[in-house]
Amino acid sequence: MPKVVDHEQRRTEVAAAARSAIADRGLDGATVRDIAAAAGVSTGVLAHYFRDKDELLLQALRDSYAAAAGRMLRAGRRNPGLEAVRGMLEEELPLDDAGRTELRVWLAFWGRAAFNPALADEQAAGCRVWRKLIEEAIRVGIEDGSVRADAEPAEEAEALMAFVDGLGLQATLEPGRLPAERQRELLDLQLRRLRPG
Amino acid sequence: MPKVVDHEQRRTEVAAAARSAIADRGLDGATVRDIAAAAGVSTGVLAHYFRDKDELLLQALRDSYAAAAGRMLRAGRRNPGLEAVRGMLEEELPLDDAGRTELRVWLAFWGRAAFNPALADEQAAGCRVWRKLIEEAIRVGIEDGSVRADAEPAEEAEALMAFVDGLGLQATLEPGRLPAERQRELLDLQLRRLRPG
Repeated sequence: MPKVVDHEQRRTEVAAAARSAIADRGLDGATVRDIAAAAGVSTGVLAHYFRDKDELLLQALRDSYAAAAGRMLRAGRRNPGLEAVRGMLEEELPLDDAGRTELRVWLAFWGRAAFNPALADEQAAGCRVWRKLIEEAIRVGIEDGSVRADAEPAEEAEALMAFVDGLGLQATLEPGRLPAERQRELLDLQLRRLRPG
Repeated sequence: MPKVVDHEQRRTEVAAAARSAIADRGLDGATVRDIAAAAGVSTGVLAHYFRDKDELLLQALRDSYAAAAGRMLRAGRRNPGLEAVRGMLEEELPLDDAGRTELRVWLAFWGRAAFNPALADEQAAGCRVWRKLIEEAIRVGIEDGSVRADAEPAEEAEALMAFVDGLGLQATLEPGRLPAERQRELLDLQLRRLRPG
């Protein structure tokens, strides 16, 4: 069914254009007209793929979270034990231009999700996946001895996710005070308590 | 100069009405008309106190952060050592209705601050005050022996603030999963590494 594939492909492209427009101008600044222009389609064509702006934003958030989960999985495979946990968490921090763009988009969504149940559900689903990935990496670290044996994987994953969300938030709002190296130092401090001994 | 005092008092009242409207409807949902109605003034009178919506929002954020800093100071005085640190951090978590309202307002501001330098500056100034309060409480804890002697107060304060911001964010977006007791458990886990021995 090539037509269906094209449709999905086009939805993904339009959602990517939406993420870029949101990162530049915020959720309210990014108009449907801007997004259509960035995606190289008319607003009429855009309306064929997304019923309204809310549906488009939901797809943009979903794609962004799925991309982050994919990066986390790959980072987890590249490193052993506790280093896998660190590599995965780094994928959620604004350490380079792509990360900073992503965090601005997430921040805009978080600000709206408190007032929009559909966005809040999407946010919760994305966080659940990330938490499970971190939890599993901690479990593997306990088995290979790089994480202290008495660590509670679910608890630690939850605390680490809160920490990384807060650090990403602060680094997005104060990029000068929290450059990549400083974020890595603070992540290192946070990971210290997982070390054995 | 009673006239000046009245003016400041009225600005504070209008900013409080703005916070309440923002907590209900988000930054965009809260119109100047809504805020004026909640404050019991006309939009004309409101325009006498605030040049535009941005100036009003800035005042609302400033007052909210100042109120939180005041609560943190009081919580710090009520408890000794590490318990002071815990008490202060709890003032930033959505543990009750007032805290949940406050976090919704902050979340809305954070989402916009990434795209508004004046709000980002206000946010940074507020966070700096909070960090210093936590840092000082950790220092006192080291002196009285309730915090491990090798803890770095500035580093730990920074990490704790990131953690609490992230936890507050998540608890605001997923209140069912993160009720007050669960937030306290996670804060306890985070504070554990500050304990001596």
